[in-house]
Amino acid sequence: MTYLQMSREELQKEYELQQKHFADCKAQNLKLNMARGKPGAAQLDLVSDILSCFVDPAECFTDGIDGRNYGELAGLPVARKYWADVLGCKPEQTFIGGASSLNLMFDIISRAFSHGLLHSPRPWSKEAVVKFLCPSPGYDRHFKVTEFFGAELITVPMTATGPDMDVVEDLVKDPLVKGIWCVPKYSNPDGIIYSEETINRFANLKPAAPDFTIMWDNAYCVHEFEGEYVPFPDIISLCEKAGNPDMVYEFASTSKITFPGAGFSVIATSEANIQYISGLFGVQTISYDKINQLRHVKYLKDKAHTLEIMKKHATVLGPKFGVVADMLDKEIAPCGFAQWNRPMGGYFVSLNTMHGTAKRALSLCKEAGVVMTSAGATFPYGNDPQDSNIRIAPSLPPVAELEKAMDVFCTCLKLAALEKLLEKN
Amino acid sequence: MTYLQMSREELQKEYELQQKHFADCKAQNLKLNMARGKPGAAQLDLVSDILSCFVDPAECFTDGIDGRNYGELAGLPVARKYWADVLGCKPEQTFIGGASSLNLMFDIISRAFSHGLLHSPRPWSKEAVVKFLCPSPGYDRHFKVTEFFGAELITVPMTATGPDMDVVEDLVKDPLVKGIWCVPKYSNPDGIIYSEETINRFANLKPAAPDFTIMWDNAYCVHEFEGEYVPFPDIISLCEKAGNPDMVYEFASTSKITFPGAGFSVIATSEANIQYISGLFGVQTISYDKINQLRHVKYLKDKAHTLEIMKKHATVLGPKFGVVADMLDKEIAPCGFAQWNRPMGGYFVSLNTMHGTAKRALSLCKEAGVVMTSAGATFPYGNDPQDSNIRIAPSLPPVAELEKAMDVFCTCLKLAALEKLLEKN
Repeated sequence: MTYLQMSREELQKEYELQQKHFADCKAQNLKLNMARGKPGAAQLDLVSDILSCFVDPAECFTDGIDGRNYGELAGLPVARKYWADVLGCKPEQTFIGGASSLNLMFDIISRAFSHGLLHSPRPWSKEAVVKFLCPSPGYDRHFKVTEFFGAELITVPMTATGPDMDVVEDLVKDPLVKGIWCVPKYSNPDGIIYSEETINRFANLKPAAPDFTIMWDNAYCVHEFEGEYVPFPDIISLCEKAGNPDMVYEFASTSKITFPGAGFSVIATSEANIQYISGLFGVQTISYDKINQLRHVKYLKDKAHTLEIMKKHATVLGPKFGVVADMLDKEIAPCGFAQWNRPMGGYFVSLNTMHGTAKRALSLCKEAGVVMTSAGATFPYGNDPQDSNIRIAPSLPPVAELEKAMDVFCTCLKLAALEKLLEKN
Repeated sequence: MTYLQMSREELQKEYELQQKHFADCKAQNLKLNMARGKPGAAQLDLVSDILSCFVDPAECFTDGIDGRNYGELAGLPVARKYWADVLGCKPEQTFIGGASSLNLMFDIISRAFSHGLLHSPRPWSKEAVVKFLCPSPGYDRHFKVTEFFGAELITVPMTATGPDMDVVEDLVKDPLVKGIWCVPKYSNPDGIIYSEETINRFANLKPAAPDFTIMWDNAYCVHEFEGEYVPFPDIISLCEKAGNPDMVYEFASTSKITFPGAGFSVIATSEANIQYISGLFGVQTISYDKINQLRHVKYLKDKAHTLEIMKKHATVLGPKFGVVADMLDKEIAPCGFAQWNRPMGGYFVSLNTMHGTAKRALSLCKEAGVVMTSAGATFPYGNDPQDSNIRIAPSLPPVAELEKAMDVFCTCLKLAALEKLLEKN
């Protein structure tokens, strides 16, 4: 019997049962964290041999370049070739950054505001208002970057095949709409892979703004934890074919391949955009860390070998997502008040609980020592109008801890839902 | 007999002699570069054992932090302690960045324009005009950062003890003057160490702008190539004592200690500023490369050990600066038309040649295959009003090549001066 089918008496009884269980949870004095997409220690152990793979100075020389010195703003040829292989574009269409792809995204948006992009009539800061599309639930750090520069964030609903393209196609008719945030594979947090149709509709957009920009964060491009690698189309050539060659900036990094925040990142975009941003980025730095480029290329080799490493990560990550799915199936599914996805890759499970109870559920979690991503974080301005979406990030805790954390989480979901139902009845 | 004492006939004879020598130079088909402060290969070889110093994953754990994962935006405690030791400030007054201190400077200025600094009444982009002081000759990349955001660059003359402080103290009375670029030790390009009096006058400035900012680029803080290490005062505590605790941002990096563009960098400033910029920088990145922080702290250990490594660099750099000094003494001093400094550290020799001949001299150099920093580059907007200053960067070529390059350079200086004198007479 689901909660929605229960009588007040049955709800009251269930509430007392869950309260008792909650008290037991609290008594454990847990301190667990499912807030962020951080790999766990076991994953980091799997790739820690990267520390010892690049020790011979003779290997610093590639293509006649001494990687130990200044130079090569857009990255070493071997690094550009590596990312072109992974992303399915051309090396000339890549620009290699430092340890953070978020920083590359920030820099593109920051420069769009201060100087404008290739086809901008003027810097975005000189527009009366800049609107930015935020498919939601989405990634809070994306939204925050555009909010930081004063853009008006517009929520676009997510569907099972990606952002609602009818809505997107309609909104881009407004010349003040300057761009959109996308995570095309294993979207954060829904874990959805954009369908071929969605991707084609993106490439064929006809935005009113000449400098409309798709921020294509391919953060989880090779990040399957279950099943075989799922190929993805090259958005750069699709946009080119559609007559929108400079409309997309694609991003990726090794942060969830080797060490988070200590790898290397990439922008993939048209050669015209690469030339344009090289002019801008050349003011802020002489060149990015080429030693780490060399170290990573040596370690990761190419796409095929990278996929082998991702299989290893999957052996650690897969069981953790299994725990989440099993616990939700067992504890929450029968209660009938929540829905969630079953991703095959990425770092998150997105759950929609009873409207108006997400904040309360996570506040209860915190009380019992389990920290989750804040309710609302997956929406612009941290405000989920339905107070329903919760991002579960199960990658950090070991399985034994995760089971405890999920037990607490399920209990809190139930308690919050029961409180709501009892208050209504 | 100096050129200025020569008769027209003597000048003509000398001109023909130098022309003949220039033809010989050209016949060598040289391809030499003295444009940038890049260490030479021999220096990079000296520190290439950094590649193999950090290979044990167990060493990634310091102060209970796993350096392989996200976190610690302001840097690992061990990294903050290292830079506090080198700079003579407190660890809490440091913020550790990525491979480029220029990028940290850029980010501070960029955020000053987009959001304002701690005491800004409004973002600098909302001011009618922002003026920035540029002691010249100075570093072109500094000037370019402020030019990029539309600041009006104001030249401040350099003296033998640093920027002309009478001029600085006068200019900061203008509330539109928002900051100044400084290289306090072995200034780029003059190689001057700011005197104690200059530094104290900086700390005690009474600027009209509440958010006036000293950009204190301590790029060559431990970079002696001759003689013993020269201590420098801690600008952070001097400003604090003078009642200007938040007025200075100090910068440094390992780019000329280990590998250029592949090390780690630091901002040192008041704790209030650290807190403020952490809020800003936290939007652009989750954390900087902590593995490289660990690798560098392991390799460099502390200030004392870093100074030992700098002694090794000095064995390579010292002789190169010796070649420059010897060639100028032998070839140019007797001609009496140029002056230059004899730095004991840093990466440059600054030479002032006959007014109106710097561009011509470097154009002749280029003709003979020797690339120098562009004439004018050491002044705001790349415009040296006297067309006189030339930055010599002798670090990259090996000594044998450097001798050839300096021979070409001296010949071109003479030719340009002779052309000018003959045209006048």
